[in-house]
Amino acid sequence: MNKVRIIKPHRPSVDELVEGVINGNRALLGRAITLIESNATRDQESSRELISKLLPYSGKSLRIGITGVPGAGKSSFIEAFGTYLCRRGLKVAVLAIDPSSTVSRGSVMGDKTRMEELSGEENAFIRPSPSGGSLGGVARKTRETMIACEAAGFDIILIETVGVGQSETTVRSMVDIFMLLLITGAGDDLQGIKRGIMELADILLVTKDDGDNRQRAAAHCQELKMVLHYLQSPTPGWTPEVLTCSSLEGRNLDTVEETLYKFRDSMKQSGFWFTRRRTQALSWVQALVHEALLTSFEQHPAVAERMPILENLVASDKMDPVSAAKDLLSHFTYPDIS
Amino acid sequence: MNKVRIIKPHRPSVDELVEGVINGNRALLGRAITLIESNATRDQESSRELISKLLPYSGKSLRIGITGVPGAGKSSFIEAFGTYLCRRGLKVAVLAIDPSSTVSRGSVMGDKTRMEELSGEENAFIRPSPSGGSLGGVARKTRETMIACEAAGFDIILIETVGVGQSETTVRSMVDIFMLLLITGAGDDLQGIKRGIMELADILLVTKDDGDNRQRAAAHCQELKMVLHYLQSPTPGWTPEVLTCSSLEGRNLDTVEETLYKFRDSMKQSGFWFTRRRTQALSWVQALVHEALLTSFEQHPAVAERMPILENLVASDKMDPVSAAKDLLSHFTYPDIS
Repeated sequence: MNKVRIIKPHRPSVDELVEGVINGNRALLGRAITLIESNATRDQESSRELISKLLPYSGKSLRIGITGVPGAGKSSFIEAFGTYLCRRGLKVAVLAIDPSSTVSRGSVMGDKTRMEELSGEENAFIRPSPSGGSLGGVARKTRETMIACEAAGFDIILIETVGVGQSETTVRSMVDIFMLLLITGAGDDLQGIKRGIMELADILLVTKDDGDNRQRAAAHCQELKMVLHYLQSPTPGWTPEVLTCSSLEGRNLDTVEETLYKFRDSMKQSGFWFTRRRTQALSWVQALVHEALLTSFEQHPAVAERMPILENLVASDKMDPVSAAKDLLSHFTYPDIS
Repeated sequence: MNKVRIIKPHRPSVDELVEGVINGNRALLGRAITLIESNATRDQESSRELISKLLPYSGKSLRIGITGVPGAGKSSFIEAFGTYLCRRGLKVAVLAIDPSSTVSRGSVMGDKTRMEELSGEENAFIRPSPSGGSLGGVARKTRETMIACEAAGFDIILIETVGVGQSETTVRSMVDIFMLLLITGAGDDLQGIKRGIMELADILLVTKDDGDNRQRAAAHCQELKMVLHYLQSPTPGWTPEVLTCSSLEGRNLDTVEETLYKFRDSMKQSGFWFTRRRTQALSWVQALVHEALLTSFEQHPAVAERMPILENLVASDKMDPVSAAKDLLSHFTYPDIS
């Protein structure tokens, strides 16, 4: 018996997406990421299935986090460095992580429209931050988008953050190497940089080492080396390096590339490369579990009702914190441990 | 009808302890702290009652955290500075927080026996760290011991940590001002200091500014001022200060005291003093709740059984973190939200 087959534009199945992604099909990579970013309940299961199937093809890229305050030259650097890498034959994906970008900081990924040269490169893939959502949600989507890009054969993943938000620690927990971009020297050049960010960085990169700035860049570089002496390296066996570069004149982009490889090779040799990736995956499980537990606690009706009352008592020294915690926990129905 | 009253040595009641403490009775303060530190289940309720009743009498001291790596001169400084303050008529309590002290670092509070001069002062009260227990437990007890000391009329509470452990952030969350002690200059003087500790400090204190060391201390001081330019202050409205002192020659102890008061006065004027204390009490509630939730999750039999299996799958890239987290959470019986 013959059936009439009706051909219609269809939603690609998970298996079609997987095949498309691992064959490097850009259109299907785009659709896969759209599925990953979807907040719709009906997409959650397919999204998880997709990631599970892409996972075996992932893991081969160099994952690079890039941060710096607005004005540090992040967009110019990513444009120049990304283009440089593409022309060296590497496939480069640029992702951003910034839950607030749609609200106030249009500069983060709005800028990507300014990356005209890079976006014209055949080897480049630029994906703006998923709009809205909590940091946890955006971070999860960015991490899974990274997996998809790796499965699609990208060699370098650049993940950008704004350097003034909450997201740097999160990005540090999903990349192999973390770079902090700093502008040359005017003294107040660090205004707004967040506590602890210096100690997340494996490479400090002084940008705008060009024109009149060259001497100041060199001086700044020396100062930073001294400061690093007082800070801890985020990576065992690696002493953070201070480099300068010029996105405008293309200066030292090769040195940045070489330093990245030096880092990777030395980490692979020591074995810390794999240790860190394993640790990162396990911490990710833990972070997701913690988030779910705390949310279920805070949204528990009896807890939500009691919380503001207790907060008032504690804030006015009428109740000690230990009693308040006991009280709150007593309103949360514990799972039956039997 | 007359009853025969038998007089026997008795355990003081909570009310007797409260009255003793607020009257400054040292023996009863000691017994109150012993109750606070008790791990016995039968003491938990009395301990909470005691703290609740002491709380209204607390809050008037200056709470100071002191840290530094072993060899930075913490014990000598506390001995010299504590004695100096006592002789100025102030009542000084010295507490320590270091859950590992009983195991490996006898130097922490074993040293207190070396504080011969300070322990001979009538205005001083020195209390070693409660032995054993997790950091969370020790921290809770230290915080409550601080409340008891305040109710007993102590003006200055010094809380000491070793600077290489997990406890500095915890102490920062219970004090008004945090001091980092550093030794003069040999280049490797920061070996072993923990990531982020520099950015917890309101005062950096270069010790051993005496004898041959004076020039090096001054040079170190200048270098630290430069480094601070790259770090964030832990306290809004306060730029961290770098001071030098000599415990041996008693140099600059007065400057340290003045700086502490300058900090307090400026914080009280801006209102941040009270904001921080309120925030600290509320964060304490939150920390206790989180700890309890995570422990109940990890100790849940089904979760504990499934955890190592999932960790293996994730570590070997056979399962993605999101699926693993979902799986784990599905084994945890959620409270009935109805």
